[in-house]
Amino acid sequence: MDARIGEVSTPARLAAPAEGIGREELALAARNHGMPLEALRHEVTPPGLHYVLVHYDIPYATAEGWRLTVRGRVRRPLSLTVGELRERPATTLRVTMECAGNGRARLEPRPVSQPWLVEAVSTAEWTGVPLRLLLEEAGAGPGSAHVVFTGADHGVERGVEQDYRRSLPLATALDPAADVLVAHTMNGAPLPPQHGFPLRLVVPGWYGMASVKWLRDVQVQDSPFTGFQQAEAYRFRQDPGEEGEPVTVMAPRALLVPPGFPDFMSRTRFVRPGPQRIEGRAWSGAAALAAVEVSTDDGRSWRPAELEPGGPHRWAWRGWSLPWTAGPGRHVLTARATDEQGWTQPVLQPWNRGGFGNNLVQRVDVVCLEAG
Amino acid sequence: MDARIGEVSTPARLAAPAEGIGREELALAARNHGMPLEALRHEVTPPGLHYVLVHYDIPYATAEGWRLTVRGRVRRPLSLTVGELRERPATTLRVTMECAGNGRARLEPRPVSQPWLVEAVSTAEWTGVPLRLLLEEAGAGPGSAHVVFTGADHGVERGVEQDYRRSLPLATALDPAADVLVAHTMNGAPLPPQHGFPLRLVVPGWYGMASVKWLRDVQVQDSPFTGFQQAEAYRFRQDPGEEGEPVTVMAPRALLVPPGFPDFMSRTRFVRPGPQRIEGRAWSGAAALAAVEVSTDDGRSWRPAELEPGGPHRWAWRGWSLPWTAGPGRHVLTARATDEQGWTQPVLQPWNRGGFGNNLVQRVDVVCLEAG
Repeated sequence: MDARIGEVSTPARLAAPAEGIGREELALAARNHGMPLEALRHEVTPPGLHYVLVHYDIPYATAEGWRLTVRGRVRRPLSLTVGELRERPATTLRVTMECAGNGRARLEPRPVSQPWLVEAVSTAEWTGVPLRLLLEEAGAGPGSAHVVFTGADHGVERGVEQDYRRSLPLATALDPAADVLVAHTMNGAPLPPQHGFPLRLVVPGWYGMASVKWLRDVQVQDSPFTGFQQAEAYRFRQDPGEEGEPVTVMAPRALLVPPGFPDFMSRTRFVRPGPQRIEGRAWSGAAALAAVEVSTDDGRSWRPAELEPGGPHRWAWRGWSLPWTAGPGRHVLTARATDEQGWTQPVLQPWNRGGFGNNLVQRVDVVCLEAG
Repeated sequence: MDARIGEVSTPARLAAPAEGIGREELALAARNHGMPLEALRHEVTPPGLHYVLVHYDIPYATAEGWRLTVRGRVRRPLSLTVGELRERPATTLRVTMECAGNGRARLEPRPVSQPWLVEAVSTAEWTGVPLRLLLEEAGAGPGSAHVVFTGADHGVERGVEQDYRRSLPLATALDPAADVLVAHTMNGAPLPPQHGFPLRLVVPGWYGMASVKWLRDVQVQDSPFTGFQQAEAYRFRQDPGEEGEPVTVMAPRALLVPPGFPDFMSRTRFVRPGPQRIEGRAWSGAAALAAVEVSTDDGRSWRPAELEPGGPHRWAWRGWSLPWTAGPGRHVLTARATDEQGWTQPVLQPWNRGGFGNNLVQRVDVVCLEAG
C-alpha cells in the first residue's frame, strides 16, 4: 500500500466525551441524507426523499456498456447488458430499507462515522430480476457456499483501497423466500444515480449495506468472503480487537410522524390542545411485526396502538396509530415495536463500537400550546 | 404569543470558539442535504440530487384542491387550480440555484443554523407559467410596489409562528428579463414534495430563499413586506441590532468536480500521477461569467481555465476545465470565478452574522499516490 494512503485514511475512532460533531462527520451528513420524518406519511417514500448513504463517490454511469457478470464457481458464466436484464420477467417488491448505522450519532461515546440520528430509513418499490434465477441460469454450485457482490464505487476506507463489496450465503441468495433482487427500477423509474444506477442488489429485511449499489459483478465461491465491508466493517463489536458478529437483518423499530408543526432550529413540535392522532410506521427485518405500543408520558405508561393489517408487502413497514388528547404543556411521545420473535426496542441505549443496529426508542418532544 | 413558544424557539446565536456542530445543527443536516460534489459532472442535476433546504415541514400536499390565489391590489383577483396553470403556455428555464447559507459552517465564529459546507447548489429545468403573465392577467397595480408570496409550510422560527413568506419588488416580478416563474414541473416531472409540490416560485439568479415553495398565494401591495423572512432573516449584518442589507442575487462561485477517488471519512481525494483534467462548474447571479481561474498550488499562482461558451441557458452554471499533470505528493486545488461586473471570489473569509452569501474559494485536498 502507498504510505500516503495511511497518512490520510485513519483507523476508526470514538469521539471524546462532549466532542461535538466534527468537520468530517459534517461533510458526510451534508452529502448523505435521511428521510425527513414527515415523509413517514407516505407509504412509499417519494422520489428523492429515500435516505441515501454512499461510501465513496456516486459513479458517473451510463446504461450503455454496463455489464453484469455472474462468474466464479458456475457452469455457464453470464455477462448481461442492462437491456438484457430489463427484457426478463420482472418482480416488484415493496421494501423498507434502513441504514445499519441509523442512530449512531445518539450513542455515547459516539463512533465517528456518518452521524445519523433516527431518519435513515425509507420504503421503495424495487423492480428487477430475482437473483436466484440468474444464479440458476449460470448453474451456481454445487458445493459453493458464498456469493460476492461488487459495486462500481471505488475509494479508500480506513487505509484500504477497494471497490465496495459484500457477500451473502449462497443458500440465502438461492432461497425464493429471501426475495433477493437485482433491481433496475425504483418506484417505476430507472434507478436514480445515488440509488445504484443502472443496477443494484436489494436484500429485503437486511440493513442497507447488503444491497450493493452500482452492481457489476456476482462471484460464486467456496470460501467465505473476507473483504473489508464483511470482515472489518459492519460487525457488532465492543472492542476493536474482537472478531465480532456480522450485521444482518433490521431490528424492530417504530417511528412517529412528527405531530403538529416544528420550530426551525430545535425541531421541537408544537400542537394545539384537543384530540390528536398519533401515527407512524414500524418494521422488523427479523420477523413479522406483532405489536406497536405508544407512550405519551416519556415511557412511564404504554398503550397498544392500532396496527394496520399486514398486507401483501411482507418486506414493507406497517402503519400504526393511536388517538391522544393533548393538554397544554410539554410531552414526550414515544413508540416501540415488537416482532413475532418477541424482539422489541430498548428504552436504555445499548452500545457497540461501530454504531450499528441501534433501535433505541425514539423520543419526540412536543409542546402543546394554549388554546388559541 | 404563547409563552411556551419563546421557551423553545430561541434567538439566533453564534457558536462558541471550538464548539463542535451540535445536535440541533446535525438534525438539520440530516434532513436537508447538499448535492454530492461528484454530481457536478451533470449539467442538469439528476432527480433527488438537487440540494434541499426546508424551513419547517414538507407539506403533505395533493394537487387536487390546491389553489393559487393572486389578490390584493389587483383589478381581477385570480384563484387557479393546478390544472388551470398546467393548461397555460409553459416556459422552461434551466436555473442554477444556491442556498443563501451555503458555506455557513466554514465561518468563524459559526452562525448556528443549517450547517452547509460548500455543496448547497444545483441546477434544474423548471417549467411553468411566467409570473408576470399572471400579474398582468390579474391587473396588478398601478401604484403597487411589492408582491408577497406565501408558501404552505408552517412553523416557528426564533419565536415567530409563521407560514414561509417572501416578497419581490413588483418591478422585478413584472420584468420579462427577470424570468420569474410559477413552476409546476422540475426536470420534466411534477415537482417532488421537497421541491415545492404542486407549485413553487423560481426566481432565477437569486439565492434559493426567494423561490418560495408550496406556493399558494400571491399578494400585491403598496407597502414593503416586513415579515420575518424579509426583515429579520436573510439580511447581511455584522451586529444583531442592525437593519442590514437584504440578501438577493447569488455571488460568483466556482466548484471543482472532485478528482480521483475519495477516502470515506476525510473525503480527501486520491489521484494517480500523470495528466489529469481539472473540471468544474461556475455561476453568478449578478452578471454573466467572465472568467474562471484555477490554482494547483493553494492559491500561490493562478491559470485561466477554459470556460464553456455561454449557451442559451443564461441562468445556468457553465462548465470549465484545465489540464494538469499530477506529481506524487499533496496538492491543494482551487478555482475562482469572476463575473462581468468584476465581482470575484475572496481567498480570505468575509463574515456576516447570518452566514449568508459566502463565496470563499473552495479548497480541495488531493493526494497524488506513487505510480502503480
